[in-house]
Amino acid sequence: MKRNPDYQFELVIRVRDYEVDSQGIVNNANYLHYMEHTRHEFCRHAGTSFRDMQQQGIDPVLRKVEIEYLTPLRLGEEMVSKLAMRRECAKFVFEQDIYKLPGGEPVAKADIWVVCLENGRLTKGDVLAQAFSEYL
Amino acid sequence: MKRNPDYQFELVIRVRDYEVDSQGIVNNANYLHYMEHTRHEFCRHAGTSFRDMQQQGIDPVLRKVEIEYLTPLRLGEEMVSKLAMRRECAKFVFEQDIYKLPGGEPVAKADIWVVCLENGRLTKGDVLAQAFSEYL
Amino acid sequence: MKRNPDYQFELVIRVRDYEVDSQGIVNNANYLHYMEHTRHEFCRHAGTSFRDMQQQGIDPVLRKVEIEYLTPLRLGEEMVSKLAMRRECAKFVFEQDIYKLPGGEPVAKADIWVVCLENGRLTKGDVLAQAFSEYL
Amino acid sequence: MKRNPDYQFELVIRVRDYEVDSQGIVNNANYLHYMEHTRHEFCRHAGTSFRDMQQQGIDPVLRKVEIEYLTPLRLGEEMVSKLAMRRECAKFVFEQDIYKLPGGEPVAKADIWVVCLENGRLTKGDVLAQAFSEYL
Repeated sequence: MKRNPDYQFELVIRVRDYEVDSQGIVNNANYLHYMEHTRHEFCRHAGTSFRDMQQQGIDPVLRKVEIEYLTPLRLGEEMVSKLAMRRECAKFVFEQDIYKLPGGEPVAKADIWVVCLENGRLTKGDVLAQAFSEYL
Repeated sequence: MKRNPDYQFELVIRVRDYEVDSQGIVNNANYLHYMEHTRHEFCRHAGTSFRDMQQQGIDPVLRKVEIEYLTPLRLGEEMVSKLAMRRECAKFVFEQDIYKLPGGEPVAKADIWVVCLENGRLTKGDVLAQAFSEYL
Repeated sequence: MKRNPDYQFELVIRVRDYEVDSQGIVNNANYLHYMEHTRHEFCRHAGTSFRDMQQQGIDPVLRKVEIEYLTPLRLGEEMVSKLAMRRECAKFVFEQDIYKLPGGEPVAKADIWVVCLENGRLTKGDVLAQAFSEYL
Repeated sequence: MKRNPDYQFELVIRVRDYEVDSQGIVNNANYLHYMEHTRHEFCRHAGTSFRDMQQQGIDPVLRKVEIEYLTPLRLGEEMVSKLAMRRECAKFVFEQDIYKLPGGEPVAKADIWVVCLENGRLTKGDVLAQAFSEYL
């Protein structure tokens, strides 16, 4: 997994205890939740929102995720979730990495491919590209 | 909490491991998920569905829940989730009890009050009452 | 539901989009998650933690929840989750109310009864009472 | 993503309504839950269980997931979740595919790498390999 050294957004998140499973570590599916939440906060930071896009009839949906789990997070721990985005034609690729706080140990790394649907049909992604023009 | 001895519907559910938290027991919020899932399967059994109701513009929403936690469920355990419903004017009361399998030990008991909104406004509940006429 | 006007702790939480269900509103079970997270952050604020208690062999568990749903939260909205606690013999009662931000409209109100287990047996709750002595 | 045509286990699962998000489709993270649940039911089928392994001090944990989302699942829909497993030295690879019922339309395809920890240290995976010897 290639890594972009220049993250464009980051968000501090604390583990909520119900996200930890019987192994005492955050359940694997929750990292997708953290990353989704980070993308949505990034949208807000960029001056748009998931709700705005839905109201315009644009539905960003996931096409593919590749995620590596490196170090588990536990009860009460805190993380910083970092993100860089780029466009590949109709797809947007989010490189999203999570690091443990305060030490900065890598927790999870993911590449996430998003496309935009409009009335259920694939678009070229120009609406999303425009919303994020200063990042692409 | 008064209990109705005549349940009208029941559903067997196995604990999914991600529903168990760091205490090794099913997290308290998941019992509301089990009970919601039971109500929705009851809808299907009664010949309607949550999606049908939404498409008619009817949104059943929760007004109140009283739930007692009696015995925790653990990894790999199985339960039977039982339900009885009655109408109180515009409200529908679901008595929902969960028992551990195979022994039948009581796990949780709840009274759940549901009302129906139509375009965001409270209705008298007649659409829901009609859908469940044979149970009321 | 009687309300204690003197909250002892409050926490601002933003809705995460995956917490919203097909009705466009936060799913009912997630309010229990918000309230649990608030109790745990209150523990930290009080100088203890859920993990500390577990390591001492003390398991605080829910016995009963009474929750009223007043106004739904939607995508991207923010709330303040407030808490007051009192002791009733071996039980601890948390009055937990959630208000929408910025307006302060009441979202949900709950009374939550917690007891402490030690090696699976009910305790008188003295360990928890001591940890929260300045609030009781 | 290469696909193994010979699935070794399959499980029918119905979408629970709280798994559907504001876009009206199952939230991306829930597919990891469905696949985890499928692996655990496969364990039971193979005569062991996640709880048994934990009690022996063996913790199977995820190292990597590659998942493609093909067709979204919606309210009330049903799926069949299929699985094939193979060993690659200390890693176990689960090919896990989900198809919509009744039509069989592909919903999601994933390769999932699992390793076994013993007291937090990576093992060669022999305990897991033995439990699944008839499938490897």
